[in-house]
Amino acid sequence: MNKIRIGIIGAGYIGTVHAQVLGRDERVELAAVHDLVEERARRLALSSGATAVRSPEEVIEASDAVYVTTPNTKHTELAVACAEAGKHVFCEKPMATNLEDARLVLAAAERSKAVFQVGHNRRFAPVYSALRKMLTEEAVPHSAHVKMNRGELINPEWVGDPTVTGGFLYETTIHMFDMMRFLFGEVAQMTALGSSHEYPETDDFSVLLGFENELHATLCSSADASWLFPFERVEVFCHHRTISTREMEALVSSEGMEGKEVTLSTHQLAKEEKWGYLQEDRAFVDSILAQTPPAVTALDGYKSVQLVDACYRAVRTGERITF
Amino acid sequence: MNKIRIGIIGAGYIGTVHAQVLGRDERVELAAVHDLVEERARRLALSSGATAVRSPEEVIEASDAVYVTTPNTKHTELAVACAEAGKHVFCEKPMATNLEDARLVLAAAERSKAVFQVGHNRRFAPVYSALRKMLTEEAVPHSAHVKMNRGELINPEWVGDPTVTGGFLYETTIHMFDMMRFLFGEVAQMTALGSSHEYPETDDFSVLLGFENELHATLCSSADASWLFPFERVEVFCHHRTISTREMEALVSSEGMEGKEVTLSTHQLAKEEKWGYLQEDRAFVDSILAQTPPAVTALDGYKSVQLVDACYRAVRTGERITF
Amino acid sequence: MNKIRIGIIGAGYIGTVHAQVLGRDERVELAAVHDLVEERARRLALSSGATAVRSPEEVIEASDAVYVTTPNTKHTELAVACAEAGKHVFCEKPMATNLEDARLVLAAAERSKAVFQVGHNRRFAPVYSALRKMLTEEAVPHSAHVKMNRGELINPEWVGDPTVTGGFLYETTIHMFDMMRFLFGEVAQMTALGSSHEYPETDDFSVLLGFENELHATLCSSADASWLFPFERVEVFCHHRTISTREMEALVSSEGMEGKEVTLSTHQLAKEEKWGYLQEDRAFVDSILAQTPPAVTALDGYKSVQLVDACYRAVRTGERITF
Amino acid sequence: MNKIRIGIIGAGYIGTVHAQVLGRDERVELAAVHDLVEERARRLALSSGATAVRSPEEVIEASDAVYVTTPNTKHTELAVACAEAGKHVFCEKPMATNLEDARLVLAAAERSKAVFQVGHNRRFAPVYSALRKMLTEEAVPHSAHVKMNRGELINPEWVGDPTVTGGFLYETTIHMFDMMRFLFGEVAQMTALGSSHEYPETDDFSVLLGFENELHATLCSSADASWLFPFERVEVFCHHRTISTREMEALVSSEGMEGKEVTLSTHQLAKEEKWGYLQEDRAFVDSILAQTPPAVTALDGYKSVQLVDACYRAVRTGERITF
Repeated sequence: MNKIRIGIIGAGYIGTVHAQVLGRDERVELAAVHDLVEERARRLALSSGATAVRSPEEVIEASDAVYVTTPNTKHTELAVACAEAGKHVFCEKPMATNLEDARLVLAAAERSKAVFQVGHNRRFAPVYSALRKMLTEEAVPHSAHVKMNRGELINPEWVGDPTVTGGFLYETTIHMFDMMRFLFGEVAQMTALGSSHEYPETDDFSVLLGFENELHATLCSSADASWLFPFERVEVFCHHRTISTREMEALVSSEGMEGKEVTLSTHQLAKEEKWGYLQEDRAFVDSILAQTPPAVTALDGYKSVQLVDACYRAVRTGERITF
Repeated sequence: MNKIRIGIIGAGYIGTVHAQVLGRDERVELAAVHDLVEERARRLALSSGATAVRSPEEVIEASDAVYVTTPNTKHTELAVACAEAGKHVFCEKPMATNLEDARLVLAAAERSKAVFQVGHNRRFAPVYSALRKMLTEEAVPHSAHVKMNRGELINPEWVGDPTVTGGFLYETTIHMFDMMRFLFGEVAQMTALGSSHEYPETDDFSVLLGFENELHATLCSSADASWLFPFERVEVFCHHRTISTREMEALVSSEGMEGKEVTLSTHQLAKEEKWGYLQEDRAFVDSILAQTPPAVTALDGYKSVQLVDACYRAVRTGERITF
Repeated sequence: MNKIRIGIIGAGYIGTVHAQVLGRDERVELAAVHDLVEERARRLALSSGATAVRSPEEVIEASDAVYVTTPNTKHTELAVACAEAGKHVFCEKPMATNLEDARLVLAAAERSKAVFQVGHNRRFAPVYSALRKMLTEEAVPHSAHVKMNRGELINPEWVGDPTVTGGFLYETTIHMFDMMRFLFGEVAQMTALGSSHEYPETDDFSVLLGFENELHATLCSSADASWLFPFERVEVFCHHRTISTREMEALVSSEGMEGKEVTLSTHQLAKEEKWGYLQEDRAFVDSILAQTPPAVTALDGYKSVQLVDACYRAVRTGERITF
Repeated sequence: MNKIRIGIIGAGYIGTVHAQVLGRDERVELAAVHDLVEERARRLALSSGATAVRSPEEVIEASDAVYVTTPNTKHTELAVACAEAGKHVFCEKPMATNLEDARLVLAAAERSKAVFQVGHNRRFAPVYSALRKMLTEEAVPHSAHVKMNRGELINPEWVGDPTVTGGFLYETTIHMFDMMRFLFGEVAQMTALGSSHEYPETDDFSVLLGFENELHATLCSSADASWLFPFERVEVFCHHRTISTREMEALVSSEGMEGKEVTLSTHQLAKEEKWGYLQEDRAFVDSILAQTPPAVTALDGYKSVQLVDACYRAVRTGERITF
């Protein structure tokens, strides 16, 4: 069988991570890579065996499947173009940085017969996939307490620029909105308070969420805190059971009325596996080959954008948003 | 100078803790103790050198200062009686288990010229007093994430009986409402979701709070989780700084943009000091002797009841409560 | 049946702990207490319902069983006197502070028909009893790494006075020598290096031990380190398994080739139970009533003294000590 | 100025790590790479821009400086050849897998005028360099407790083959022998016990060490334990101070008589920097350009082999080895 020719648009950090993972997948051939900064495309081409090309269009033409790994605010246009060209698309999160664009991507993905997967890698991280399994097979969650903080919006420097990220929540916090859907189902209502401290945008959020299944949760996300480990944590409360994550490093489950804990540590895994990049890329190739729906659909991507959009709206209006 | 004669109404766990602390204070003489269960009064009297008496009235009569350490729902009547008798009062939290009763206690305390202190011990715990100091002297908090869970409402058995506790939030979670006022100032608004799982009352809460100073916070408190350490935690976010507690065992402060943490551990302290009982009892005696206002006033006690009451109301009505 | 009359010689910290535990045991009556400091005896008598008496002899006379809870260097004489009087004896560790005295106590205990138990409480602490169970039933240990440090020899002040303690190793480190016998069996050989830094005695030890069953272990114990938690830790290595304690707060077992850990936390227990005092006192009373051998025998007490003595000798001579 | 041409002999894991680091150093050009497995050389050549060549000799000829990153037992011959050719050499640890070979390498390095650096990367890891700084500038250590365990000798599969590794201690534990010299100075004496459990070699060690400066230490290293974090830990005891590492993830220092800890976390660093690979490669290039002695000399490499050799001898003979 022929190898799947994969192209990459956007040769920054995350594009390089995917290229490295894909480079070890025998079913794949890295075909073409483009970046607005030519030197970056050239370097990624060199190390991956792909060809550096001069435009996104050339990538699309040379490929069976395209990774859209540009800055956030460029995802929509490229994702739509790839889907409309009938290519399989791996679109990094966020699929879009506003609701209208998200609708465009969703529509294009739905019109296409090819695979369209969104890069919510955390679903594949062993810590989170094990957590999901526990909540599906062992324990019914009734509430949750989630946080995702940052030490700064300075490194890398574009991370503090909303014209690049689409806004603080679109950059990393969107993973937690997707994660809550992944773990707890659809959100029914949201109330939020926000404030602005260090950066020229709302950079600190406290959020209250109600889910369709009656679970309720609190979420906080501040851009200006510190890198105190763990800066990303999901705590879930079930009947006589607490399950808690420490970033993607450990999952701790404590069951019963005494102090017994079971910890799953991923300390020994390489980052690409610990963070789920390896698994999501394999799943994408699997879907293409088996012609099965992707593990994270365009609708999932749309709904995470919808939750971020609702959170901004909840802060702005002071209203309870219902879905 | 004569020793202050102290009486104790309620010879259960917390009454015994106070008696032990007071028994080592040279300025104090344990005068009388009463409990509905005579055997308990007798036992505490024996170990503390006090006299077991047959009624609360006898305790009041024999004492300069009275500790009200009965079950929660009995605090109001006794606290009012002690205050009206002109005695100094140390009233355990909650001061009352509904707003109307809290007003009665507050009014009685305000009419009295004696000291009236409420037992919000956590303010005196080294972990929390050090946290307060940091937030006052070193760093301005902008948001917070607070949790206080339990493994069950079974041990001790009365803890699951709302006719004794006044309701789950009145029993332990009220400490966190007081703690937030202590650390962040007055609450301006509150929204909450709640549910009932294991116990015949609302036993699981997710709460969103806005403060007068613009700080916002999330709080969760479930009666049915586990004893996964830490089950009580306050995380505060400041400019390039995160400060977090692990129950009353440790305070961790991480400042700057790198991974540096400073931990204050109270592991070596005896529980009575670690939890602030020692310090609150000394502060009460100090206030009596120096004729100064108590460290935790009847108004503080009232406001913590007010917040608990508002939280129940917010869950019931679905409305945002403003103060 | 009549209650067992228990007397206490030595009303300091540990005597008081035992009195409190015994005071809640229905099978026991606290009969008499003596201390060289009369005020201490009086206070313990008051809180325990015992009678303060003027001499150890009076305690022995008034009691069926005697707790020897004086400073270390006084244990031998009193333990021998109690045993020779035919009384049951609970002798705090160390049974003696030199080998010759230990032999005297052992001989007296062996001549007596009464129960003679030594206060190696750690054997009863849930963390250590669970560890023992694992090593007996689940996993064969092949090596171990043990440490027991202190932050200072200042609090309490007598702890730095070898005329009271018998020497640094006799005070707390002896628990670890006993613990290693409890967990790993008899020691076959020992080599050690020591030095003196802050205190007028050898206060820092590095020890290499070989056991009869071929297990080997390292032990370190410094009097001048810090109270960095955990200052007491036993790590045991088995086939694809590491088991580690954090003081008497937690037992962590990691089995298999991946990062899975199971933690048993004793955080919720009261100190007297967490440290095994409750259990050892009950076991002592059980032995008296059932006329069964004690859980920690005079021979165990003798062997722990023997190991401490050998350790001092190993440091002094530079020789390998064999047993 | 011309770039330094660097060649790599051995294109396995560690050769690839160095190639990636060197590939980002502007002062360097990757010239040639060789591996007995041609495909590996080809792949590394592709991603690094170097040329794959057919023999070590061709690498030496094409390079100003050579990295010897073959299996352990091949280091000696290649390191000697490179040094004799007058090339700068970066020789991975262990420099040799027996004392005689180590002498050959040391002699060759001493005869050469070029730089000869040994790959004891841990000296450059921020956790260990910060620890060294503390011990040099702030606190005098008096004893230490060191461990380095493994979960297995199965992954990668050659790690359990002494004909490849030179023996268990030569593979990873040698880092700890070097680390102790780095932190505490020269070893004066060593006693050790060892045993064999799962693998066809001595795979479990308990070691007692005395240093020239009177410090004493214990070390344990088992090949058959588990991956319980941290499996590598150095604990150092100073006057009222304990300093402890958790692998290369964190350095905790606790000073004073209370429970205060300061933690330096390297959680945010990329592995190549966290483990010191980045820094050691830069230091090597610095030394070449500045014509200064390397940070880790051939003599350092020799002494670490000497300590491993002594440890095996100590186990075999049962004797105390002196230096």
